[in-house]
Amino acid sequence: MLYLIGLGLGDVKDITVKGLEVVKKCTRVYLEAYTSILTVGKQALEEYYGRELILADREMVEQEADEILRGADITDVAFLVVGDPFGATTHSDLVLRAVNAGIQYRVIHNASVMNAVGCCGLQLYNFGETVSIVFWTDTWRPESFYDKIKRNREMGMHTLCLLDIKVKEQSMENLMRGRKIYEPPRYMSVNQAAEQLLEIVKNRREREEELAISEDTVCVGLARIGAEDQAIIAGTLQHLACCDLGGPLHSLIITGHLHPLEVDMLRLFATQPDSLQSLTTTDSSTYTS
Amino acid sequence: MLYLIGLGLGDVKDITVKGLEVVKKCTRVYLEAYTSILTVGKQALEEYYGRELILADREMVEQEADEILRGADITDVAFLVVGDPFGATTHSDLVLRAVNAGIQYRVIHNASVMNAVGCCGLQLYNFGETVSIVFWTDTWRPESFYDKIKRNREMGMHTLCLLDIKVKEQSMENLMRGRKIYEPPRYMSVNQAAEQLLEIVKNRREREEELAISEDTVCVGLARIGAEDQAIIAGTLQHLACCDLGGPLHSLIITGHLHPLEVDMLRLFATQPDSLQSLTTTDSSTYTS
Repeated sequence: MLYLIGLGLGDVKDITVKGLEVVKKCTRVYLEAYTSILTVGKQALEEYYGRELILADREMVEQEADEILRGADITDVAFLVVGDPFGATTHSDLVLRAVNAGIQYRVIHNASVMNAVGCCGLQLYNFGETVSIVFWTDTWRPESFYDKIKRNREMGMHTLCLLDIKVKEQSMENLMRGRKIYEPPRYMSVNQAAEQLLEIVKNRREREEELAISEDTVCVGLARIGAEDQAIIAGTLQHLACCDLGGPLHSLIITGHLHPLEVDMLRLFATQPDSLQSLTTTDSSTYTS
Repeated sequence: MLYLIGLGLGDVKDITVKGLEVVKKCTRVYLEAYTSILTVGKQALEEYYGRELILADREMVEQEADEILRGADITDVAFLVVGDPFGATTHSDLVLRAVNAGIQYRVIHNASVMNAVGCCGLQLYNFGETVSIVFWTDTWRPESFYDKIKRNREMGMHTLCLLDIKVKEQSMENLMRGRKIYEPPRYMSVNQAAEQLLEIVKNRREREEELAISEDTVCVGLARIGAEDQAIIAGTLQHLACCDLGGPLHSLIITGHLHPLEVDMLRLFATQPDSLQSLTTTDSSTYTS
């Protein structure tokens, strides 16, 4: 059996009781380590489980899936994923390979950033399409996520923005020379994402487009959701561009129409007296900014 | 401290290790029992935790929140919620009351139907707004969920439909006579939801509206996600109106544009050879029905 097991979002103890039991009995245990991270690393997990983990980077999962699946028809193999195995990143490919090889699989679910962001008080069913904000480079500055946010905002929906993660990236030089030397991992912060959005707002304003968001749009920055030291800040986009939420992982939400109960919850996370003052009522029961 | 603890979706062992540790140390433990259910009941949870649970129905949570929060400033109180505490139903109200009473709170997340449905292979970031499908009565047959599905479909997005739950409902007669006698709980099944949608399709066709979905639209029915006996079926809306997925809880997904990997995953859950034959390619990389 192939078990895909979600680890949740915080630390070693966010695995479910069921998940932990399976980890302990499996022949081999892989840890997917390229789409997300916990606040603790491989070593802490190994100590807690009392067993060795095999780190599975993107290369391994994509090119050596057969090795991961080896023997899983007669023994148990676990594949651990931060969050939920079918959360922000799905592992459909591995599942399909398993099924094609006649291997049974089972999913042990857990919290994912896709549902845990509800803790800021914004209702999950008021979210539209989720978007990814990627690190801009000097030559590659895509704005497509802005247009998705715009589409959600026009319908009054909130937008969850998943922020870029760069793990095991090679510099152009090392890539060209074929040297397997990797850059340190990079995780986009809320203020980096907010800065990129502000630049898009500036560009669109110059082009005299009708703006979907502005410096005053109320946003929510979230960091290390589910961990002891999680941080949530509600404020304007401009404000979030200057805030420091600490270590990774970060996520950003651009609000749409807000219900009074959502506004009350956001007040708990407003760090400045004027954080939410750009909100105005659109009708008797809804706020927007 | 007030702990809001997600129980996940399957059985007693879907609680996280962290959640279980907290349950064992709290002075009082409430079980929210009106927005969702596990495949096991209160008694199984009590046996597993080795302690008594206080059932919190809607009336109690809404009208006796002070009792739930009593003493939580000096001792620990746990409030258990099936799925995630901020999943399909949020418990913002209880959190706000706690904060206003100077009580600290902490959320222990878990899987929710909002993210666990990803196990059918449809990518969570391709979902639009989530809708609720309510039980129709002879006199109340709202169609608003259809219009939301339409809006999502027009943008190529999938729609997760949460299906109605009726717990502790009184008959009109008992309500009028003030008798606290409750009807047995009712949980909407995938085929009931599909039947209501088919009736709306019929109504709209008679009005010569342009249809957002039809009998041939590919849908996914999900039951008891996360449990040992979970069931997932992919097929046309017409097909799902006739299928029996067994006991509650059920959810229904109306697909939007499908990527090839999503189609490959759905094939795993297609029970009839022609289940997905209504899919056609919209462009080089996308399917729709």
